[in-house]
Amino acid sequence: MTLEEKIDQLIQLAVPFFEGASETGLITGPMASLGITENTVHNAGSVLGMAGAQETINVQRKHLENNRLGIPLLMMADIVHGFKTIFPVPIAIGCSWNLELAERSAEIAAKEASVSGVHVTYAPMVDLVRDPRWGRVMESTGEDPFLNAEFARAFVRGFQGTDLTHDYDRVAACVKHFAAYGAAEAGRDYNTVDLSERQLREFYLPAYKAALDEGCEMVMTSFNTVDGIPATGNAPLMRKLLREEWGFDGVLISDWGAVKELIAHGIAADESEAALKAMVAGVDIEMMTSCYTKHLSDLVRSGEVDVALINEAVMRILQLKDKLGLFDNPYRAADPEREAEIVFSDAHRAVALELAHRSAVLLKNDGVLPLKPTQRVAVVGPFARSGDLLGPWSWTGSQDAVVRLSEAVRGKLTAPSHTTVAIGCGIETEATEQQWLEVVQAAQDADVIVLALGEHSDMSGEAGCRADIRLPLAQLELVRRTKALGKPIVAVLFNGRPLDLHGVFEESSAVLEAWFPGSEGGQAVADLLFGDANPSGRLTMSFPFSVGQVPVYYNAYNTGRPQGAPDAQVRYVSQYLDIPNAPLLPFGFGLGYATFEYEGAALSSDTMTPDQSLSVSVRVTNTGAVAGEETVQLYVRDMSGEVVRPVKELKAFRKVALQPGESEEVVFELNESQLRYYHSDLSHASDAGAFLAFVGPNSRDNASLPFRLVK
Amino acid sequence: MTLEEKIDQLIQLAVPFFEGASETGLITGPMASLGITENTVHNAGSVLGMAGAQETINVQRKHLENNRLGIPLLMMADIVHGFKTIFPVPIAIGCSWNLELAERSAEIAAKEASVSGVHVTYAPMVDLVRDPRWGRVMESTGEDPFLNAEFARAFVRGFQGTDLTHDYDRVAACVKHFAAYGAAEAGRDYNTVDLSERQLREFYLPAYKAALDEGCEMVMTSFNTVDGIPATGNAPLMRKLLREEWGFDGVLISDWGAVKELIAHGIAADESEAALKAMVAGVDIEMMTSCYTKHLSDLVRSGEVDVALINEAVMRILQLKDKLGLFDNPYRAADPEREAEIVFSDAHRAVALELAHRSAVLLKNDGVLPLKPTQRVAVVGPFARSGDLLGPWSWTGSQDAVVRLSEAVRGKLTAPSHTTVAIGCGIETEATEQQWLEVVQAAQDADVIVLALGEHSDMSGEAGCRADIRLPLAQLELVRRTKALGKPIVAVLFNGRPLDLHGVFEESSAVLEAWFPGSEGGQAVADLLFGDANPSGRLTMSFPFSVGQVPVYYNAYNTGRPQGAPDAQVRYVSQYLDIPNAPLLPFGFGLGYATFEYEGAALSSDTMTPDQSLSVSVRVTNTGAVAGEETVQLYVRDMSGEVVRPVKELKAFRKVALQPGESEEVVFELNESQLRYYHSDLSHASDAGAFLAFVGPNSRDNASLPFRLVK
Repeated sequence: MTLEEKIDQLIQLAVPFFEGASETGLITGPMASLGITENTVHNAGSVLGMAGAQETINVQRKHLENNRLGIPLLMMADIVHGFKTIFPVPIAIGCSWNLELAERSAEIAAKEASVSGVHVTYAPMVDLVRDPRWGRVMESTGEDPFLNAEFARAFVRGFQGTDLTHDYDRVAACVKHFAAYGAAEAGRDYNTVDLSERQLREFYLPAYKAALDEGCEMVMTSFNTVDGIPATGNAPLMRKLLREEWGFDGVLISDWGAVKELIAHGIAADESEAALKAMVAGVDIEMMTSCYTKHLSDLVRSGEVDVALINEAVMRILQLKDKLGLFDNPYRAADPEREAEIVFSDAHRAVALELAHRSAVLLKNDGVLPLKPTQRVAVVGPFARSGDLLGPWSWTGSQDAVVRLSEAVRGKLTAPSHTTVAIGCGIETEATEQQWLEVVQAAQDADVIVLALGEHSDMSGEAGCRADIRLPLAQLELVRRTKALGKPIVAVLFNGRPLDLHGVFEESSAVLEAWFPGSEGGQAVADLLFGDANPSGRLTMSFPFSVGQVPVYYNAYNTGRPQGAPDAQVRYVSQYLDIPNAPLLPFGFGLGYATFEYEGAALSSDTMTPDQSLSVSVRVTNTGAVAGEETVQLYVRDMSGEVVRPVKELKAFRKVALQPGESEEVVFELNESQLRYYHSDLSHASDAGAFLAFVGPNSRDNASLPFRLVK
Repeated sequence: MTLEEKIDQLIQLAVPFFEGASETGLITGPMASLGITENTVHNAGSVLGMAGAQETINVQRKHLENNRLGIPLLMMADIVHGFKTIFPVPIAIGCSWNLELAERSAEIAAKEASVSGVHVTYAPMVDLVRDPRWGRVMESTGEDPFLNAEFARAFVRGFQGTDLTHDYDRVAACVKHFAAYGAAEAGRDYNTVDLSERQLREFYLPAYKAALDEGCEMVMTSFNTVDGIPATGNAPLMRKLLREEWGFDGVLISDWGAVKELIAHGIAADESEAALKAMVAGVDIEMMTSCYTKHLSDLVRSGEVDVALINEAVMRILQLKDKLGLFDNPYRAADPEREAEIVFSDAHRAVALELAHRSAVLLKNDGVLPLKPTQRVAVVGPFARSGDLLGPWSWTGSQDAVVRLSEAVRGKLTAPSHTTVAIGCGIETEATEQQWLEVVQAAQDADVIVLALGEHSDMSGEAGCRADIRLPLAQLELVRRTKALGKPIVAVLFNGRPLDLHGVFEESSAVLEAWFPGSEGGQAVADLLFGDANPSGRLTMSFPFSVGQVPVYYNAYNTGRPQGAPDAQVRYVSQYLDIPNAPLLPFGFGLGYATFEYEGAALSSDTMTPDQSLSVSVRVTNTGAVAGEETVQLYVRDMSGEVVRPVKELKAFRKVALQPGESEEVVFELNESQLRYYHSDLSHASDAGAFLAFVGPNSRDNASLPFRLVK
């Protein structure tokens, strides 16, 4: 390969650049603005956002004709929570606490994507999140490093399987966004991140590391700064930590345009310096800008870039192509006939339905739920008939195929005509007089009003940040007016972030957080409302009391003046004058139609040693009238460390399915390695001393069991 | 001295512990709960919160009788913004941009405090602040490291003068809270702080360092963690950075109770370990807890604490006592007769009035201001007749002595009976029917309504944090109803933090931010409203659009996708969907009754070298009808650094007083040392390359002048 051919392998371009694609002819547009030639396109290493078996075959075929060396294109795309069969958004999948279903969803996404010609998905996104203003919290599984790491592993297993070379139903995974993108200041996307290295390692890095430990093939850089340097040009982060310390030798790709963005960030004076910094940092593929193509060869000639760096980058890309079998079969699984058969199949949709059942979180229920088939039900609100249940990152899905909530409810009633429907208002636009009249009519004879509320999918996702995290005012007004009709209200929420629920929580008899539940969302919600499925989701991100409380998360430090301490003064404790410290709803919280009692929580010993683990046991009984699934959660607190330690840290959880009256003894093993943390010198070790173990249904409601680690 | 006598020098107790104090007899109460004996009190090194010449003389006399070695007590107190003559709160003093008056205010505070027996004040507080939820922003001069450092120096000069030993009108200063207390997470007091070391050094440390460079005698630890370790037990911060790197050899004191709080923080298992960690970190005085007294001698005996550390701590305390002249005259300046003469003197109050004039910031004026003496003025609102204008940390002041706004306005009118007054509602309680009737009556014949609104002083200050930073709802309702009366509204705000001004800013014809203006506050505001003083204050902390935008500050980084960039996409830029990125009112902003035009901004050269400074010049003309003072501000931006650089950084400012029609050429020198910043290896250096200089009236409205640094 010539130096130029090598460098062109490092560029990634979008679909319309390529011959054979359905949209083309962009040579005078984007290609000109990128300052690249047709030759660069012919030499390009990968393509972004490509999907569809016939199209990918066409593009690959043309590419192989045009490429001197016959190196196939890598086809990459954002397949985040499903391809055509859209699963709930990742924050919802997180709330399932169900790693098997998470893995299965990724496996299905991979299978549908692969048969449609995709080789690599830009997933999983495993950024730890604490700020619900940030639109991309919907892409994350939440605020806990342990749980995020478990989901990271499950998604990677699901996407990649165990043999990418021969298992064409799988695609390579690309974990993102490295690193700490979730800590964007003020919850504003792309904004500065500033953390101590200890905080970075303790909270933010574990999930990326877990994905790599599971064999994840690729890593994507984040848009944010890490200790003052944008990730994409950050040699300490990428070259030193990711490649040297962690030993990652897969492909590192920039996020969209992020190499050139080093200029706007202000660490590169021009495109040449941006190329230099990204290459030195270890970025192999430049996505959608052309700093590498235009400047790397000069940088090599001037000696500023060692050609060995370029050789390494090209080799990593070629090795991934080889691993995916592209040199044997450049079309890999792409197959229009099989695509038609597999994609959005009933079997796949059944899994999407099950995951939607398990992702929704019942936040409140005064007994109005489950509904009965004999009731008269008014389905009111802007989501009553909406297909906008897929959420962001569902560009390959189809809203037309989404089961509408009102239709699914109608299907539940003994007398379908007892379903009345009114949209009430727009998502962000006030009720017209006519719309309000329809609500009044719909509610007139109803026994219960299901209020289907939320955010349209553009209100979260990338660049979907909100400073006000309540429901839009038009909907709060709809709640207020509907409440005045005097019927019980069941609020169903479709949204991509934890909301400030003032104005709907108190006003409703029951509140079901459905998130964006995906293709089968309407059906899943109806099943849950009528008790044909039993809500079992548990929050993985705290619901703040209000935006003025942000960030609020369960695994925080104690401060020197905690509220509620025995010797606390009235005023001089860490608190607000106007709101509580606690979120409205804590991490791990969720209700169902069964009730569970915890008894006899106990430790096998009050002492642990490095060689001797403890067991933590508790008896859980279904005291309700229906079968149900409980998520038993184990937390630990280190009472005194060399640095401050969180008031609680999730260490394990167990799902138990119990019939009414049934009991199960849940036993967790806890050992010294689970008590390790990053010290001030960044060593990862445990300290002898006092600890508390907590076992219970969520991060708030659990009794403490003291023990000591003796070394 | 025995070991025990040495150790007892390290304890600091509040007034009631001491014989001779007006409140005593606490031996069975606090003394018992601290677990200390009368003997410890007799050996104690210092006292907290003592003031009043006669009382300090009594306590010192008794102490000398009881202390075996005749070592006098150090009397310390929080004299933050005045003693009896209360000046505006520090955030307001910051808005004066007037270092001379700031210094003079500290000098007067020192003189009044000293004659009342105080030796040390716990001031200046120089914590950089970005989160208006935090109650203690009122104690800071704002969000800019350069300006904070300048004020830190001015306050230290004012408190200490140049010869503490002989100048009894001065007191020792104690800079606080070391370090980065202002970065408390979620704006909740005492909460965790997490920063990169670079961020710490770039933004948070300069003002503490400036105070020490100016000779500040003492340092107080902060309540927060710094990189995972509470400041009071933080050896890297205190022993290594403060003492070794910076060479500070003065007295380091804990904040109230902060040594024992190491237990609650979770880095000490018990009081003994708390004592150990604080002593090893370098904390000399333990304030209000007794870990040192109870445990240090055992720790010395066991070899865990080197007695040399204790000797050093005692020596530093004794040296400070010596420097203050206490071994020559343990009563120092305490003198009841001179106290009566000096304290709250007319001369001092005149300075308080002048500083209040210069601290208020006119945020809006559509022409309704200044008021005319011939107008009929209704003074309405909970601050119309309130004496609560002193603000937090004014325990030595008296609200009774505060000039009320309504009275001061009455004094301005040709016909005093044309002043009508109604309080309208409580600060946090809704208007009663009667109260509202009084407003209607007061407004009936008025030409203009002065709405005196705000927060009571307990709503800011220590532990005075608010998650909702609007005016209290009762007052917003008062604005709404008053607006409906159809008269022009002049809103005057008394408060301790930047507020979200929705609900009052648009509704008012003029808005004057008076902060807590101190003893002469009512008079100062009336002078400003009637044009007898011309508003000249400029904000030193951004007023956010809403709490959902926090933190928002002018010297932020650019991100890779800034709003408004030439190639910015519509959605995919760093922004919120629902509010702007810019604060409602930016750093440096403020209006007056004159108007100023900036012309001919120019650089002396487009190139700077390390040896060759630049000058930045601009012609400023008073285009108004009255004399006025403008604060000309110089900002710089480094376009490309080794790490990201702020979009603007204040480098200098100049006050110019101009008659109508008068012009002045303002010239700033700018040199290479002002372009230095902390690199990723924490080296402090400049980089050759492109810069912008900005000169203008605030951080938003200024044209850019490009230049290059050539090295």
